Amino acid sequence: MLAVVNCSQLVTLRGAARPRVGAEMRELSIVEGGAMLVGRDGRIAAVGARDEIERLIVAGDCEVLDAGGRVCLPGFVDAHAHPVFAGTRAGEFEQRAAGATYQEIAEAGGGIRASVRATRAATEDELVAASKRYALWFLRGGTTTVEAKSGYGLSVEDELKMLRAVRRLDAETPLQYVPTFLGAHEVPDEYRARRADYVELVIQEMLPRVAAERLAEFCDVFCEGRVFDVDESRRILLAARAAGLGLRLHADQLSLSGGARLAAELGAATADHLEHTDAVGIAALRSAGVQPVLLPGSVYALGSTRYPAAREMIEAGLAVVLATDFNPGSSPTPSMPLVLSLASTHMRMTPAEGITAATVNAAYSLGRGDDVGTLEVGKRADFCLHDCADYRELAYFFGVEHAHAVYVGGRLAFRRGA
Amino acid sequence: MLAVVNCSQLVTLRGAARPRVGAEMRELSIVEGGAMLVGRDGRIAAVGARDEIERLIVAGDCEVLDAGGRVCLPGFVDAHAHPVFAGTRAGEFEQRAAGATYQEIAEAGGGIRASVRATRAATEDELVAASKRYALWFLRGGTTTVEAKSGYGLSVEDELKMLRAVRRLDAETPLQYVPTFLGAHEVPDEYRARRADYVELVIQEMLPRVAAERLAEFCDVFCEGRVFDVDESRRILLAARAAGLGLRLHADQLSLSGGARLAAELGAATADHLEHTDAVGIAALRSAGVQPVLLPGSVYALGSTRYPAAREMIEAGLAVVLATDFNPGSSPTPSMPLVLSLASTHMRMTPAEGITAATVNAAYSLGRGDDVGTLEVGKRADFCLHDCADYRELAYFFGVEHAHAVYVGGRLAFRRGA
Repeated sequence: MLAVVNCSQLVTLRGAARPRVGAEMRELSIVEGGAMLVGRDGRIAAVGARDEIERLIVAGDCEVLDAGGRVCLPGFVDAHAHPVFAGTRAGEFEQRAAGATYQEIAEAGGGIRASVRATRAATEDELVAASKRYALWFLRGGTTTVEAKSGYGLSVEDELKMLRAVRRLDAETPLQYVPTFLGAHEVPDEYRARRADYVELVIQEMLPRVAAERLAEFCDVFCEGRVFDVDESRRILLAARAAGLGLRLHADQLSLSGGARLAAELGAATADHLEHTDAVGIAALRSAGVQPVLLPGSVYALGSTRYPAAREMIEAGLAVVLATDFNPGSSPTPSMPLVLSLASTHMRMTPAEGITAATVNAAYSLGRGDDVGTLEVGKRADFCLHDCADYRELAYFFGVEHAHAVYVGGRLAFRRGA
Repeated sequence: MLAVVNCSQLVTLRGAARPRVGAEMRELSIVEGGAMLVGRDGRIAAVGARDEIERLIVAGDCEVLDAGGRVCLPGFVDAHAHPVFAGTRAGEFEQRAAGATYQEIAEAGGGIRASVRATRAATEDELVAASKRYALWFLRGGTTTVEAKSGYGLSVEDELKMLRAVRRLDAETPLQYVPTFLGAHEVPDEYRARRADYVELVIQEMLPRVAAERLAEFCDVFCEGRVFDVDESRRILLAARAAGLGLRLHADQLSLSGGARLAAELGAATADHLEHTDAVGIAALRSAGVQPVLLPGSVYALGSTRYPAAREMIEAGLAVVLATDFNPGSSPTPSMPLVLSLASTHMRMTPAEGITAATVNAAYSLGRGDDVGTLEVGKRADFCLHDCADYRELAYFFGVEHAHAVYVGGRLAFRRGA
């Protein structure tokens, strides 16, 4: 067993077995000076005051982890990420800094299609090796569960290769991956002139293979005029649901293209991005119980100032989620603390709301709410000791890696050396 | 001796013995696969291709540092920072996220004055201890030299205490500090009703003591209508020059208050912030050879979108500097890589221009251009191996600490453990 003692704040997020909405998002259920006991099964056995927990320790049978007055938080759950790809797009980044727009680069064959070419050219082994670099970055940011979308393969075999790489990363690293099939991320070069055929390929060939090999839990579509329109997105997502997958949706990122309303119509688990969603869209998400996944890292990295309307969504009673959107183009950050900083400085979310959106709400959005996202008895012991005494510092001091030690299932996954 | 070999890119910034302007800012003089030899005096003895350097190694007499295909860069020089203070302002950060403005908090006695109360209450030992946490953060970001402003004491003894703490930090940590006296950072509570008397205190009592104890190399003033106006700022800076100090100036941050023009009139080393500086101000800085120090971290952290006009300044021929403005209120980041990210995503500076602004140009702005800021023979061996093969990744992947190992004067100052 493992006893974690001497936390300045044990941030439990204890509460009802559902995502948090409205004022609940500010309630972190912090145990000051708290402690926690982890069982041999890697699950939380007890949470409470230090003396209560110490009474439960059987001498000689329990490793004691002294938190040294640090904050203990559930591991972050990053519910929207593209953490598997080959190559970087640092060259395009430089072009954008020099004045080119993301759209111009995409139209010249760059953007997602550049990552597709590199990812297709890589073997599964190469993809796994490249992506392990990022797995460590996620852990160093205090993230223990990450969603992993495919979508840089865009052929049957390359999409399967990506999802097999995700499965291997889940097995070979301490980071926990939740796989999402995103065959409809972009139209690949060879289908530019016959986009309808690509939609058929996704529905008729990719989805059945992904489902048969149980390679994904969710299906996502990039619903945007330039990519897949509402009708195409609906067809793909209905097929995905029939194949047993949960639904997510890139919605209203670049324009009010109807993605949020489609997510509501289909009762998707999430609608993601939502930079252009209006009050009608917010109300539709509310009625349908769809969770919004907000991705301020991509707004920032694209040099935009149009952040999603987080405040309005919280006030409308939506169970808001924050995620990194980690990817090699529009959001090259794996850092949930940086996303918390963006949420507080640019979206008027308090640090507590940010923590809720990055843990318990994110876990529910991935169907993992019963397993992770809070520090409660029975949950998997995925937690992080952050090198501060006040959880608010995670959002406040930015550009710093706060994580001191990260545990997954009660086992050490990362510890800062120096 | 120390030989650094097997760098993917040795980014030397070799060039004329002056700051870089215009197109020069994009010339990093990279030696691909380069190597470097450091002498026993901690200074760079040779720079070149790997085989050239290896020929110079006397067997048994030289430690060999294999960079493992990483980028080697000069240590960042952070030319505007407030790295010594007691307490944090995480509570105010939370208030701002919940809707309060920085100005409202300042008018209610918060802001700089809150840090003044905490800093006055701390002993010199406590200040040194609190600030060592941040010294490590600077090093972890790849920074080897940091400017350190006083300005949270605002009494004779407390300003001296801060500057003595800076001197101790310089001696007790590997980080190199350049001290700046900023007695005119804010009007302290006890002088709110008699601001003119405070200006006299700065000029008549603080400055002579600071100069007599040789506790600062520069003097800075927060020139802004609400704080010290142009006439007050001029008086203080003229007295500082007479006392032998170099001049810096917080200018045009919150409004076009004339700070840039004053900096030009006085021939100051730098004018800092410049969010509201107009074309007339830019031309004045150009004529007077004043270096602009741009601080995008504070724009970001205040949730503003008004970044300084970096592009116009570069095109006007100014020797632009980037710095963190690290402080507990408006810019709680010690990370130069995050500043490079902001510069590329929000100010249209290329990664190369950012590196130049954060190294050689910054060093000249602090009067250290002959000593640090480039990797050239004779300079102090302050360098960082970053965990990437392409220097552009420092600005591209954000929210990650890239530094793998940091050396100051040829000695290891920080190495990433995990």
